[in-house]
Amino acid sequence: MQKPEQLRELIDREIDKMGFADRLPGELYLPVDYVMTNGGKRLRPVLSLMACEVFSDNLTPALKPAAAIEIFHNFTLLHDDIMDKADIRRGKSTVHKRWNDNVAILSGDAMAVLSFALISSAQREVLPALLEVFNTTALEVCEGQQMDMNFESMAFVSRDMYLEMIRLKTSVLVAASMKIGALCGGASESDAELMYESGLNLGLGFQIQDDLLDLYGEQEAFGKKKGGDIVQNKKTFLLVSALEKAGGKTAERLGYLMEKEKDPQVKVMEIKKIFDELGTGKEAEEKARSYFSQAIEKLNDTGPGHSRKTEIVGFIKKVMERKT
Amino acid sequence: MQKPEQLRELIDREIDKMGFADRLPGELYLPVDYVMTNGGKRLRPVLSLMACEVFSDNLTPALKPAAAIEIFHNFTLLHDDIMDKADIRRGKSTVHKRWNDNVAILSGDAMAVLSFALISSAQREVLPALLEVFNTTALEVCEGQQMDMNFESMAFVSRDMYLEMIRLKTSVLVAASMKIGALCGGASESDAELMYESGLNLGLGFQIQDDLLDLYGEQEAFGKKKGGDIVQNKKTFLLVSALEKAGGKTAERLGYLMEKEKDPQVKVMEIKKIFDELGTGKEAEEKARSYFSQAIEKLNDTGPGHSRKTEIVGFIKKVMERKT
Repeated sequence: MQKPEQLRELIDREIDKMGFADRLPGELYLPVDYVMTNGGKRLRPVLSLMACEVFSDNLTPALKPAAAIEIFHNFTLLHDDIMDKADIRRGKSTVHKRWNDNVAILSGDAMAVLSFALISSAQREVLPALLEVFNTTALEVCEGQQMDMNFESMAFVSRDMYLEMIRLKTSVLVAASMKIGALCGGASESDAELMYESGLNLGLGFQIQDDLLDLYGEQEAFGKKKGGDIVQNKKTFLLVSALEKAGGKTAERLGYLMEKEKDPQVKVMEIKKIFDELGTGKEAEEKARSYFSQAIEKLNDTGPGHSRKTEIVGFIKKVMERKT
Repeated sequence: MQKPEQLRELIDREIDKMGFADRLPGELYLPVDYVMTNGGKRLRPVLSLMACEVFSDNLTPALKPAAAIEIFHNFTLLHDDIMDKADIRRGKSTVHKRWNDNVAILSGDAMAVLSFALISSAQREVLPALLEVFNTTALEVCEGQQMDMNFESMAFVSRDMYLEMIRLKTSVLVAASMKIGALCGGASESDAELMYESGLNLGLGFQIQDDLLDLYGEQEAFGKKKGGDIVQNKKTFLLVSALEKAGGKTAERLGYLMEKEKDPQVKVMEIKKIFDELGTGKEAEEKARSYFSQAIEKLNDTGPGHSRKTEIVGFIKKVMERKT
């Protein structure tokens, strides 16, 4: 069993092999290189490799599919950043800021194609199953991004709508990462499906935790402002839960703060108070914890013995405990 | 052998089956439906089906791959229109004009994914070969679009650079359409390769002809202005050939007209005169004709008898003779 850091290195090497920095035209590929060497956590491809290792000692068949997932994920971030007009990603200028929108659109498109090309190079026996989960997932991620954008102009979003949105936008790709890794390791269809469900729960827990960390987490190295989601009225689990729970005066006050309060510090402080009154922080924590334990349960339900799962369970627990 | 109109109907039916208009979220899929029902010529998928019919009486295996190519092609047009800030496509508002840039980016992304999903549904025996040509081609199309954008800010572009650009941006997808159709029809690898080369030549001829028609063609129903490429200093075959051929006073005059002439009518008329002096129109015609005959030659070199090629040769000849 290899440690996450070793697996991350394997992924980085696989991505290095693509030689983006040397491809022509440079205007197309330099942004791809920039994005792919931007020090991401490689969460998804590491999960793929770990999922593969649950079923097999041979990681090789999972390497290119894992790299495909990481490139696809970064493609979605690149295009999302244009749509969200985000200036900074992982402490560096986003592609559309550093270059321009056209460069960001087209190099994103190239990354999508590159991810499909990599997944297509999987071994013949698993290829149709891999394509099926990859393509379905890729389309769902687009649907999730659209839902997320729709939420921006909606006054009310229910918890269920929110959960469906993060299932599509975030969780299915984590789920697909684990299923694809498992399939590359020779898992049975039913075990691969359990890995998918494990990843789905992990992704849901991860996103709710992300919402929590934005408000309650430790200051990040990159200096992301605490409570940024509140300032932007972003429909996080905390906010949609508060919108569902709040009645009368509290609902009015929340509405007022969201629409009218111009001072970001006051806005964050006051809305945080409402979250505390309604107990939405506690609810989110419980929800995330429940998803994380479901993730481990589904993983434990798969055929292989516990000893094959030590690393991946440890990794999920580390994700659970992250503070930034 | 089926007529092009019958094949176009088969394609339209295949695209209809995707049910874009009913998919959710509507914000994502309505623009896809809008683009895919926008009355394109379906040149590429019709060529796919015709290429399949050269080798087989059974078109079914080629239907989904042909639809994949058409969706991919329309995805590239959709994103190109954002990058080129084009307002009109086939007489209707472009997606980014009718909706906005974000909608156009994301529904384009969904179309890219949909095209990959469709090509992935090809029959198992041909799947790896189809993926190989589709993925390679898709990446080349991105590279071609980047080259084309690079040309905008370059004072000089050689004929060879121009030909390489249109090979990537336009011709490889026509070539892939024919190769994919042939593979679905059970063509041998060498026959499939000949079909690819036939399509490559057809695509090159088609694009040079497009450049010619912009200046010398009949007025289109949609009312595209004659000489629009000249007004925009677009690097067409006519212009790059003139830039290579012109010397002394002519080169100076051409440079002046491109940079300083503000009256579009004068600009078109005067640059057209220079093209006539240098014989670039005639050169372009000869070049296009030579590519078209190469296309037919390569097609004739494939194994099946002439009787199987009547329709596709007739179709290529019709393309050759188009006036708009």
